[in-house]
Amino acid sequence: MTALPVGMAGIREARRRIAGHVRRTPLVPSTALSDRLGRPVSLKLEHLQITGSFKLRGATNAILSLAAEQAQRGVVGVSTGNHGRGLAHAAKVAGVPCTICMSALVPANKVEAIRALGADVRIVGRSQDDAQVEVDRLVAEEGMTMLPPFDHPDIIAGQGTLGLEILEECPEVETVLVPLSGGGLIAGLALAIKETQPDVRVVGVSMARGAAMHASQQAGKPVLVEELATLADSLGGGVGLDNRYTFRMVRDLVDEILLLDEAEIAAAIRHVYWQEQEIVEGSGSVGVGAILAGKVRAAGPTVVLLSGRNIDMALHHRIISGEDVDVAEEGT
Amino acid sequence: MTALPVGMAGIREARRRIAGHVRRTPLVPSTALSDRLGRPVSLKLEHLQITGSFKLRGATNAILSLAAEQAQRGVVGVSTGNHGRGLAHAAKVAGVPCTICMSALVPANKVEAIRALGADVRIVGRSQDDAQVEVDRLVAEEGMTMLPPFDHPDIIAGQGTLGLEILEECPEVETVLVPLSGGGLIAGLALAIKETQPDVRVVGVSMARGAAMHASQQAGKPVLVEELATLADSLGGGVGLDNRYTFRMVRDLVDEILLLDEAEIAAAIRHVYWQEQEIVEGSGSVGVGAILAGKVRAAGPTVVLLSGRNIDMALHHRIISGEDVDVAEEGT
Repeated sequence: MTALPVGMAGIREARRRIAGHVRRTPLVPSTALSDRLGRPVSLKLEHLQITGSFKLRGATNAILSLAAEQAQRGVVGVSTGNHGRGLAHAAKVAGVPCTICMSALVPANKVEAIRALGADVRIVGRSQDDAQVEVDRLVAEEGMTMLPPFDHPDIIAGQGTLGLEILEECPEVETVLVPLSGGGLIAGLALAIKETQPDVRVVGVSMARGAAMHASQQAGKPVLVEELATLADSLGGGVGLDNRYTFRMVRDLVDEILLLDEAEIAAAIRHVYWQEQEIVEGSGSVGVGAILAGKVRAAGPTVVLLSGRNIDMALHHRIISGEDVDVAEEGT
Repeated sequence: MTALPVGMAGIREARRRIAGHVRRTPLVPSTALSDRLGRPVSLKLEHLQITGSFKLRGATNAILSLAAEQAQRGVVGVSTGNHGRGLAHAAKVAGVPCTICMSALVPANKVEAIRALGADVRIVGRSQDDAQVEVDRLVAEEGMTMLPPFDHPDIIAGQGTLGLEILEECPEVETVLVPLSGGGLIAGLALAIKETQPDVRVVGVSMARGAAMHASQQAGKPVLVEELATLADSLGGGVGLDNRYTFRMVRDLVDEILLLDEAEIAAAIRHVYWQEQEIVEGSGSVGVGAILAGKVRAAGPTVVLLSGRNIDMALHHRIISGEDVDVAEEGT
């Protein structure tokens, strides 16, 4: 195993750097899920983070790690979702110019959400690839710094601060369930936990429809996976064929990856509303879904990370009302 | 004006005492309500407090203020709701025996919620008066300490810590909207705020159906008011004909009391779900309802206290789904 790009020192430094800029989110016991699993289950309410997701941690750490000249020239990213929100907010707070590029096909409400956080939104072309061309131009011609959503040491270290908090808040933890997409979250979190308590099982949970990291781990290298509509839309997207860090860290640090079908994700969103009285997006609820689906091998006290809340409320309401929602058929 | 039972020193002491036992809840801006009011509006998310309401603050302060012998003999209270939850949890954490008395008419789910927090629940008779007889017996014969829900200096001081936090988190605040029932919350909060910034307007909000403190202030003395079914059920109940502290503090410190009808409370619950993505009970939402109903005179930056979340989820779902809910007709 080659040296990791991030170590405990980096995660501890990230924690000092972002303290005061991010919320320390609560860890609360769940009676309903403890009964279901037969082990004590606690929920880490990271969907209550500022901007509505954990992404703020990594974005803040990356932006506060910039050299003065980089900070002056600003940061740029491609994201219509939680990474974009985190980046825009962190940049605004730090007084760093921030440009988010997106295609003309992105719905107006998502554009407005990012703009409302103070970012300069550039609408470019009709695909994410077109948007990336503009990002590359801004980096080459204007000296801006591109901050990717997950495959970056400072981003990984920032998300890793969640591992430190979980260990402090639940030192007896034996299993942690973590939403898995590009792997930045689980890589940092697993590193922080395994360094201190190597026997804690860190389990990633993805949607079955388009689980790029799972397919890549199966193939032994980063592979392309068709992106499909899913209730866990924040977990969509690839890991990057040129993945530098997270593929390897997931391979070396994550014990197991579980996959959920759409009905299981919907059941998780419903449970979180009706039993836990929280509003969490599909991607953020997959750990709960894995327990409800009976896919988690019970092994001592378990922490479930609820990672984000940014869901369209009309969709949320349909799901909690028991409607049969199939986003694939609806083409959203 | 005679001397108040609580001063700033008491509130500051309460803050030191309860730190580490209660959450510091977030203050977040609300774009939708700022647009509506024409002034910056922020929400203090105290419904995210442990046990789901602000009541934990006062209960914790009161229990940690007990003399050693009192603590050993334990505390007792009458409450089926947020005060009972706060008391039970605070007592358990402090290792103090806690008995909650309630009548046989209390629904099983409310009994279980209090019992699950570790309290000794005694079912006595068929009314709150019957339950009070048992409390008086426990105090007289077993030396337990009765902790009332609001009319007690330590309870008032504990709730007052919310005033300190609001001033720190929003120093430019000019108006604070606070749910009003027996007055323990608003008395402590107003004292903390007025002592530092006397020009800040502190506005209480109650339901029109059975607003005991409002009726008492109108009468110039504590009066009996018929308790009626309301969506803001946590705000029900009287102020006590033998009220010692809160009647006077509300009279001297609160600038205005607003009343909401049931449709306005339902609209608040709906807004909080659809626009703010939070789940808040009727009593906790009345500040939002006052803004939506156009009853708040805009005066600078405004903080709305969301005070509790303990709502029956079936009722919550009916309200956010737009059903016409009239709890008076339903006799709940």
